[in-house]
Amino acid sequence: MAVPDWVPVREELRDEEPYGAPQIDVPVRLNTNENPYGPSEAAAADVAEAVRTAALELNRYPDREAAALREGLAAYLSRDTPAVDLDASRVWAANGSNEIMQQVLQAFGGPGRTALSFAPTYSMYPEYARNTHTRWVAGRRRDDFGIDVDAAVALIDAEQPDVVFLTSPNNPTGTALDPAHTRAVLDAAPGMVVVDEAYAEFRRAGTPSALELLADHGRLIVTRTMSKAFALAGGRLGYLAAHADVVDALRIVRLPYHLSSVTQATALAALRHTDELLANVDALRVERDRTAERLRGLGLTVADSDANFVLFGTFEDRHATWQALVDRGVLIRETGPLGWLRVSIGTPSEMDAFFTALQEVIA
Amino acid sequence: MAVPDWVPVREELRDEEPYGAPQIDVPVRLNTNENPYGPSEAAAADVAEAVRTAALELNRYPDREAAALREGLAAYLSRDTPAVDLDASRVWAANGSNEIMQQVLQAFGGPGRTALSFAPTYSMYPEYARNTHTRWVAGRRRDDFGIDVDAAVALIDAEQPDVVFLTSPNNPTGTALDPAHTRAVLDAAPGMVVVDEAYAEFRRAGTPSALELLADHGRLIVTRTMSKAFALAGGRLGYLAAHADVVDALRIVRLPYHLSSVTQATALAALRHTDELLANVDALRVERDRTAERLRGLGLTVADSDANFVLFGTFEDRHATWQALVDRGVLIRETGPLGWLRVSIGTPSEMDAFFTALQEVIA
Repeated sequence: MAVPDWVPVREELRDEEPYGAPQIDVPVRLNTNENPYGPSEAAAADVAEAVRTAALELNRYPDREAAALREGLAAYLSRDTPAVDLDASRVWAANGSNEIMQQVLQAFGGPGRTALSFAPTYSMYPEYARNTHTRWVAGRRRDDFGIDVDAAVALIDAEQPDVVFLTSPNNPTGTALDPAHTRAVLDAAPGMVVVDEAYAEFRRAGTPSALELLADHGRLIVTRTMSKAFALAGGRLGYLAAHADVVDALRIVRLPYHLSSVTQATALAALRHTDELLANVDALRVERDRTAERLRGLGLTVADSDANFVLFGTFEDRHATWQALVDRGVLIRETGPLGWLRVSIGTPSEMDAFFTALQEVIA
Repeated sequence: MAVPDWVPVREELRDEEPYGAPQIDVPVRLNTNENPYGPSEAAAADVAEAVRTAALELNRYPDREAAALREGLAAYLSRDTPAVDLDASRVWAANGSNEIMQQVLQAFGGPGRTALSFAPTYSMYPEYARNTHTRWVAGRRRDDFGIDVDAAVALIDAEQPDVVFLTSPNNPTGTALDPAHTRAVLDAAPGMVVVDEAYAEFRRAGTPSALELLADHGRLIVTRTMSKAFALAGGRLGYLAAHADVVDALRIVRLPYHLSSVTQATALAALRHTDELLANVDALRVERDRTAERLRGLGLTVADSDANFVLFGTFEDRHATWQALVDRGVLIRETGPLGWLRVSIGTPSEMDAFFTALQEVIA
């Protein structure tokens, strides 16, 4: 459905579609890697009380620097990865990782500049590049979805990208990055290296975070989100850790007052419930590993996952499998390399419903 | 304070500063055109209750289309300007007018394209253009801050801008646009024409809104905000009305899920209190007119204002006047043409404090 000729939109956008997973109203939605556990009544009440206080001053602009929130996020990251000691000057926040990534490309990408990633990976990256007029180069991952570090370094040498996106754990494959590979990319890359750790809290024990590399690498940006581990997809809070000078560069392109008082209050309230929310993450990691085992038990191929989803396959006609699951009330995601499907980890009963439907479909 | 050499930021950003009015903690803040009247206890409680409900599902992504909010905004605009009959398909919303304008330039501006406005006007426009790599052309307003329509049409003919920004009432001058001038610009402009009506609700009786021109002009975008009349600066909700095909073009460049569930719930709750909030607007319009009279009574020159602020002058050393007011606990804005200052309309007692300080300063 192209934009009509009379609308003077940029020509490269005329035939584009708005990005977004199909939204279908079915009982079991395992398609957007949402956390199936909503906030507790106590957490929701805490959010509401924080917002009630904020609401009395909604006539005033929010704190443009989101100082308290950034301090809270820094404290959380320092707890998550005790090897790092971060403060607010090294943390930045925005309306979802989407806005974080757009700001990164506004500051460090743009016309005449190149961003590079390794496919299959998160399908929004090329959209961020398009929206910021950044040239986009997609390298390839290995067949096991890891990074072929020699090929990666060779591609970086050839393309001299201004921004490299690494994704760990990778979406939609679930693959965590070997820290040696991250270091090799950091050494080879002439510009910024973004490690997108949206799913970091779900990584298996012993898998390090790229946060540990921050002290030695000024051109490293590690991005996180509260959407997944903090069950705050509806609250839209993405953030990053980097060198304070990198954060200051992002402040130049940020739209002033980009984070509302309500968003800041909501995210701060969620941070006060970190323990409760991370307990749900532990349950989801157990369910994720159980899901991988059950899929393998059905004779399917499963990518090792450090995230809250599992990529499995392969199907000769994956769309038919996806549709057959929808017909049985289970929505998963048709994404990733041809033949594969991605299922988000839900509650045990949601996963049982998924397996009941899947067994019918593949029988 | 330039970005250090080792940070590979885009060179044109290296010496830039983050945008924002100086934030100084003084008793009387009349510098950012905030509404001095916060929400009532009832409105704040309604916001909190709406957010409490939303909070229970914060683990889910928000409605990507913000359908209920856009419907509510359409109903409000249709009430504000009965000559128009809008529905959700013709209304778009984002995190403040800032994000609205950025999306407009992402879709209709960008590299190789030109945006044009008439100075003195809102100082963020060149920043939106810079962030989207849109060429920026600034025409001039007349000495009385109105648009010289013949010069405007000639400039449009010469520059062939892809986007024209008109601002009515204009910031920082308060000047409302003659609808005949808006029509002349619409007829001359080859691309989109944005009429920024952030302060529309404060316009004097009999001043029409550009919304009335929407039915006949597909390339017209009228932007509004809830920051001012709805006293929701902290909530960050900007919106626009346009042809449905124009809205669809914007949906291509919007970041998915850009409006959080909390933002949508907050704005919808504020809309339920429209009557209460608009009563405060009426009080502010009276105070605005009284402020203009009092300034004239002091022998100062005052620009006619249809907004919630007044531009006045002129001062040989306006910075000294501004500083002397700060020293007396009153923060106004040093903006607009050389020699002028802008004061936002506060409560009657805030305005009394302003006048007490001002009389001391100019004595």
